[in-house]
Amino acid sequence: MERSTALELLAECRIVLLATVRADGAPHLVPICFALDGETLVSAIDHKPKRSAAPRRLANIAAEPRVSLLADAWDEDWSRLWWVRADGRARLAEPGSDGHARADRLLRARYGQYRDAPPFGTAIAIAIERYTAWP
Amino acid sequence: MERSTALELLAECRIVLLATVRADGAPHLVPICFALDGETLVSAIDHKPKRSAAPRRLANIAAEPRVSLLADAWDEDWSRLWWVRADGRARLAEPGSDGHARADRLLRARYGQYRDAPPFGTAIAIAIERYTAWP
Repeated sequence: MERSTALELLAECRIVLLATVRADGAPHLVPICFALDGETLVSAIDHKPKRSAAPRRLANIAAEPRVSLLADAWDEDWSRLWWVRADGRARLAEPGSDGHARADRLLRARYGQYRDAPPFGTAIAIAIERYTAWP
Repeated sequence: MERSTALELLAECRIVLLATVRADGAPHLVPICFALDGETLVSAIDHKPKRSAAPRRLANIAAEPRVSLLADAWDEDWSRLWWVRADGRARLAEPGSDGHARADRLLRARYGQYRDAPPFGTAIAIAIERYTAWP
């Protein structure tokens, strides 16, 4: 699968899984809504209920910026299965920054659910360095 | 969400995301088919095409047994979103071992796609230590 195809598949997904690494070295997973800004994937802490006022993904990224993203499709016909993984480096953008404003604009454009529910919390921008697609 | 509910949701999923940690400390993601053996989740290297004869998930687990699993459901109605995360410790079971035979039996019972495609490669048994469910 070509890089451009991998990016197209990712662009059509509505949700992606974000893997980070915790301070103790164990992996951490959470699904995120996202938008693409060229080959940077942006996301933000939003109004959906959170288990904590300080979501773990942010602390993890602050200490270890390398993250992995995965989008997949399930089908009982296994000849139709596919997944796309994107590995990259994340940085955080706080409300008030240019990076945050850009993520906010892209996310609102992509999700109707965001349009009436500003503002967002911390934004995450992940510069994709490597795509892996299967099969 | 109670632990029993989290386990029920997981039991109904056909696929789950497995996060491991690479030797260089970065996270790694791959979707896996699985079966539950009480509170142990089992999976195996199967006949689906692989990018490598030595899938990275196995090397990662051999060096760092702590893994994270996530099942989620997407819905444009965000009041219906949910995800379940299970953190645990993985161990590998090679073909010929009792652990492998058990995983093989459970996986074949769960997936019609496996019944005509023996044998499996290395099996993975993940003892779930903690459930996290959202919302």
